[in-house]
Amino acid sequence: MNDSSVSMRGLRLALLAPISWPTPPRGYGPWEQIAHNIAAGMAARGADVTLFATGNSTTPVRIASVVPVGINEDPALNGDVYGALHTAHCFARAREFDLIHNNFDWKPLTYALATDAPPMVTTIHGFSSPPILAAYYAAAHRSFYCSISDSDRDPGLDYLATTYNGIDPNEFTFVEKPGDYLLFLGRFHREKGTHLAIDIAKRAGVPLVIAAIPQDEAYFRSEILPHIDGVRVRFVGSVEREARDALLGGALALVHMTTRPERFGLTMIEAMACGTPVLGARMGSIPEIVIDGETGFLCDDVEAAVARVRDLATLDRRACRARVDSTFTTAHMVDAYADAYVRALAQRTPPPPSAERIAARNHDYWDRPMAFTDFSKKPRTLIAGPGIRMK
Amino acid sequence: MNDSSVSMRGLRLALLAPISWPTPPRGYGPWEQIAHNIAAGMAARGADVTLFATGNSTTPVRIASVVPVGINEDPALNGDVYGALHTAHCFARAREFDLIHNNFDWKPLTYALATDAPPMVTTIHGFSSPPILAAYYAAAHRSFYCSISDSDRDPGLDYLATTYNGIDPNEFTFVEKPGDYLLFLGRFHREKGTHLAIDIAKRAGVPLVIAAIPQDEAYFRSEILPHIDGVRVRFVGSVEREARDALLGGALALVHMTTRPERFGLTMIEAMACGTPVLGARMGSIPEIVIDGETGFLCDDVEAAVARVRDLATLDRRACRARVDSTFTTAHMVDAYADAYVRALAQRTPPPPSAERIAARNHDYWDRPMAFTDFSKKPRTLIAGPGIRMK
Repeated sequence: MNDSSVSMRGLRLALLAPISWPTPPRGYGPWEQIAHNIAAGMAARGADVTLFATGNSTTPVRIASVVPVGINEDPALNGDVYGALHTAHCFARAREFDLIHNNFDWKPLTYALATDAPPMVTTIHGFSSPPILAAYYAAAHRSFYCSISDSDRDPGLDYLATTYNGIDPNEFTFVEKPGDYLLFLGRFHREKGTHLAIDIAKRAGVPLVIAAIPQDEAYFRSEILPHIDGVRVRFVGSVEREARDALLGGALALVHMTTRPERFGLTMIEAMACGTPVLGARMGSIPEIVIDGETGFLCDDVEAAVARVRDLATLDRRACRARVDSTFTTAHMVDAYADAYVRALAQRTPPPPSAERIAARNHDYWDRPMAFTDFSKKPRTLIAGPGIRMK
Repeated sequence: MNDSSVSMRGLRLALLAPISWPTPPRGYGPWEQIAHNIAAGMAARGADVTLFATGNSTTPVRIASVVPVGINEDPALNGDVYGALHTAHCFARAREFDLIHNNFDWKPLTYALATDAPPMVTTIHGFSSPPILAAYYAAAHRSFYCSISDSDRDPGLDYLATTYNGIDPNEFTFVEKPGDYLLFLGRFHREKGTHLAIDIAKRAGVPLVIAAIPQDEAYFRSEILPHIDGVRVRFVGSVEREARDALLGGALALVHMTTRPERFGLTMIEAMACGTPVLGARMGSIPEIVIDGETGFLCDDVEAAVARVRDLATLDRRACRARVDSTFTTAHMVDAYADAYVRALAQRTPPPPSAERIAARNHDYWDRPMAFTDFSKKPRTLIAGPGIRMK
């Protein structure tokens, strides 16, 4: 804890984590990783943390669980059912807490609307599809919102703060010497640009290592699998903690050429913590995280990225690490949340949105660079008023 | 109202309807139809009914809505989002009511677990898949349950009552003379046995009329569409009120050869109200509704059903109507619910389940004739204890 840190001593904090994986996750699981980091950081600042997470979670705080394992660890578990029971569990116990910090997407907002639970802060880790905005609009008078980058904000919402994700740099091994392969890390989805990473690596004549979990199966089969040859393009599956650290540290750069705006991009700061720069798309959160020409390169297209590959080894890898140390540590993140909590506790409920804000809710999602994962058809009817009048 | 009816005068009743369609539905929508019938019937008995339903609902009671139209009427509306807001709306206002009657499946149970809402009665209109039993088990100490037939009961749950669905017979025109076609009415899904109805009609040499909404598209294309010839097998799409009445009344019989146990089978009583007997499978609720040899025939297989087609015209169609009048009217249903409400209000919360009940929760779904719509893989982990300890 810095001297300047706000003490959280005495705060009875309910932290609602996702349940796709345990908290922290053993492999992939960025939301659970952040929930872990917040829980540990808040406990270190004196908060009395109750972490609502899967029963096999290992964060060293009080774990409250009605879900035995991650729903992605037992494919037959129904995420809807267990997600609802998990959320209900937190709200049933709401009176035990001073504040609920929701890291479990939009559905908990609807439980907050239905109860007299204490003030709630919701971190919007991403908008999966436009229709869920209706839930955020409806609950805007009930929960405070935090964005995880300045870019990932909906114009119809007020935000309490941008709370950048943070990691513990000590969990990542700094490697001073540039590696000899490019790395793609994350999940297979068109929006993450795995296919662009392959294209860039091949055209630049540098090997690519892919460490990812399957998500979009059809995309994987048609656009990734045919390129995997074990030499120029190697696929190493999903990697856990130590292998992940080694892969990140040994790379020439992390390729992060997303095709849709990134919300934050946890792998980028993990790479930089190892000294590995980022070859990233100039969109979404990436320009907030990567300093162009210093901790990586921002590229407008594949062409530009290919041209930059030769310059990657010239970057000072210490600058990458320094960027994380100065801005993207758990301590910085927890400071930001501590400040947000204090303001939420002082205000209790968010102020009513302005007329401009409400007007902005009629924006056409398709004209905006929002980071939706799934573009469904635009709803013809959308609750876009000043929040649902629940009473 | 019969003289013997329990008065509901003064009861502040929140009735939570589904939102797939308006209440009542214009065409298909059995759950919404029942919600309408209950609302109207309870209002007639003096209850102060607030019906949480879509904004375009027309039941003549107080409508409370945050969902403009049925989610099946605007395919771009996200059912998850609007379903959650709809449910939250009801629970946010829970203190205005003496009782909540939930007709909107399992998710509202989780809001009940999270709140101090008044006593709740949940009608289990069907178990869509085994994993949702976890929600019913978890909330068994919080909500009373009603089954819609004696057969559609899970051995791990206690039930307050069987509350058979009921209709207003006056909305159906009695036709004394047997018609000359068989009728399939409902939705295209293998479990509803549309393909068996086709087989039976063809082998018996009697035309079949199909009035249904699409559900399982692949099933429709491969097993139904090839048989539609406009003569022996006619498809008339989804029918609304008057056309439905005419189709039902003009039929020789309704074919209801389900392949999985029916939960109740609203179309059967609608057919019988028109005087039309039922050619039905001897499973699930059908033996509770159809008196074999009097209001239809119970058949063990297609063979048996084909053999019975010639006897259908010999049945006295007045017996079919009389069966509905004596047992399956809205008045009977509302009597059953009124009695259930009184008992729920006296007990406030359900008694703890017995050890036998809890032990029965470990049943193998696949060995039981439960009426699940979707058989997913069996969960390896299931909350099967005496309900989640939420506090």
